[in-house]
Amino acid sequence: MLPQLSSLDDFRAALADAPAQDQAALQGAAARNSQLTKPPGALGRLEDLAVWYGGWRGSGRPEISAPQVIVFAGNHGVTAQGVSAFPPEVTAQMVINFEHGGAAINQLARLAGARMDVHALELDRPTADFTQGPAMSQAELLTALQAGWDAVDPSADLLVVGEMGIGNTTPAAALACALFGGEAADWTGRGTGVDDAGLASKTRVVAEGVALHKDAIRDGLDALACLGGREIAAMAGAIAAARVLRIPVILDGFICCAAAACLLQTADGALDHALAGHQSAEGAHQALLEKLGKQPLLSLGLRLGEASGAALAIQVLKGAIACHSGMATFAEAGVSDG
Amino acid sequence: MLPQLSSLDDFRAALADAPAQDQAALQGAAARNSQLTKPPGALGRLEDLAVWYGGWRGSGRPEISAPQVIVFAGNHGVTAQGVSAFPPEVTAQMVINFEHGGAAINQLARLAGARMDVHALELDRPTADFTQGPAMSQAELLTALQAGWDAVDPSADLLVVGEMGIGNTTPAAALACALFGGEAADWTGRGTGVDDAGLASKTRVVAEGVALHKDAIRDGLDALACLGGREIAAMAGAIAAARVLRIPVILDGFICCAAAACLLQTADGALDHALAGHQSAEGAHQALLEKLGKQPLLSLGLRLGEASGAALAIQVLKGAIACHSGMATFAEAGVSDG
Repeated sequence: MLPQLSSLDDFRAALADAPAQDQAALQGAAARNSQLTKPPGALGRLEDLAVWYGGWRGSGRPEISAPQVIVFAGNHGVTAQGVSAFPPEVTAQMVINFEHGGAAINQLARLAGARMDVHALELDRPTADFTQGPAMSQAELLTALQAGWDAVDPSADLLVVGEMGIGNTTPAAALACALFGGEAADWTGRGTGVDDAGLASKTRVVAEGVALHKDAIRDGLDALACLGGREIAAMAGAIAAARVLRIPVILDGFICCAAAACLLQTADGALDHALAGHQSAEGAHQALLEKLGKQPLLSLGLRLGEASGAALAIQVLKGAIACHSGMATFAEAGVSDG
Repeated sequence: MLPQLSSLDDFRAALADAPAQDQAALQGAAARNSQLTKPPGALGRLEDLAVWYGGWRGSGRPEISAPQVIVFAGNHGVTAQGVSAFPPEVTAQMVINFEHGGAAINQLARLAGARMDVHALELDRPTADFTQGPAMSQAELLTALQAGWDAVDPSADLLVVGEMGIGNTTPAAALACALFGGEAADWTGRGTGVDDAGLASKTRVVAEGVALHKDAIRDGLDALACLGGREIAAMAGAIAAARVLRIPVILDGFICCAAAACLLQTADGALDHALAGHQSAEGAHQALLEKLGKQPLLSLGLRLGEASGAALAIQVLKGAIACHSGMATFAEAGVSDG
């Protein structure tokens, strides 16, 4: 059961108190893995994935039968600074495309057998330009976190979250820079494809925002309010709800991982239930994954967002679970075990 | 239509005369890709995969509806030299496991919606020990190639081949060494898990075989006869048949790629229809992929064979095709294209 959130501190407390993996299931899954008809370790990362997933789902022989993909959309006041190659109205146009089934994520969610939900968050009311003040008030942040928190189906057995928001690699870069330090240039990339001048301007915007809010940021939720966006906060809310519900999560690209980083910088262990699905072509994603301590399952050069890389990675996890739970043991198959 | 093979030279000729991609379909697929609702290039390698696949299938908007997985099994006289951690009878035991649906590949083929066939090739008659003479006669090689050639369903739209054969990383290493040069140690790895002494012995066996047959090897088919195995030759036969039929192939691990290398060293362009599915944990696979000029889709530490890595990679290609053929264009969706 998910607790109600009446304050940001409720959110912090729920995340800090979230349950760990089921140790008995973890041991049961490991024991089963050692008996399957293959040389020890021959399925590589698939073996680790299956045991890990079993621990979260409380089963030594788990299934994936109800994956959920959620795409959150938001708009950003900082686009006034010219940080994107696309105009802000594309966010709303793409939401309609998601609803009509025409986007990449629609195809990838269908292929993965996943339920897909789309939540557009006050697109006609962009967050404030974070170079001028906080992107969101505390109340606005709580509303956005709650939108993600409430969007998770408690009966889902795997969650993937993604985003659409013209300009949102800029707040993501600012969040990473504020949370992990370094220069703005270390975290700022080309997003959907800004040119050299655009990149320079975007880097300056990130640096300005981080400098302006530095003293107000004590944890990841503070950073989200100062520098984030509604769809970024909603992803964080959904990932946190999944943590409380012991639903494993596959993280998507740079922006999704920036949202996840805000949780990690709010409570230790907040991402223990999360895998990195795909290493994006967005330059700073690799460094961000390293900060999260996650090794991606895929690296195929995607840089789309929308949960696309993570949705593709569902198939890898499904393959791991299919082998783990479907294979015969040496004893069942009458195969000599070396 | 596949030509009949009455000699190894028929095979060589069929491979050399195999058709190229359909240029009109290739251009049609590229044109469609440029109109889909995403920033240019944002789906990374998925975009290249979809256009490439369309070119082979002769469609600017292709589908994958009939993938085929074939596992070939064979036994090896060279196991008398103590090159494997498992006894040779495991090959036949695993064939029964494949037939009963209990192996890893059964689960991964089912997940990919693929038909799966198993061909056991004279398991009670291992190839000769290649340190003593040729592994196969010319007639035996032709029979094994033909087994693979005939196993391909002409109505398949994607082919994955794999193998089971206790000891078969040893002939695979010998083939790679004979075809591409270098030291035996460069190409010899631990297979299913030999210890240090086993690895040293295996490396010596590879070196002896390559030295013995060096002067008899003019092309990949000569190498297959001298150093290969029935399941390795059958994989080569199937990959060649797919080339003639314009059925794209996803290559599996080290042994499958050694089979593929024999084709490449027999006719230029023999592997133009093939992708590398997965980079195996078997040490020399990366070097072998570089010789084939292929970048793997996945790298998850598998080292099982059975077509397991390639079967998992079917999902990546399916994802590429699903996006390419299912997404809306900017015009259809009314989305501004930047």
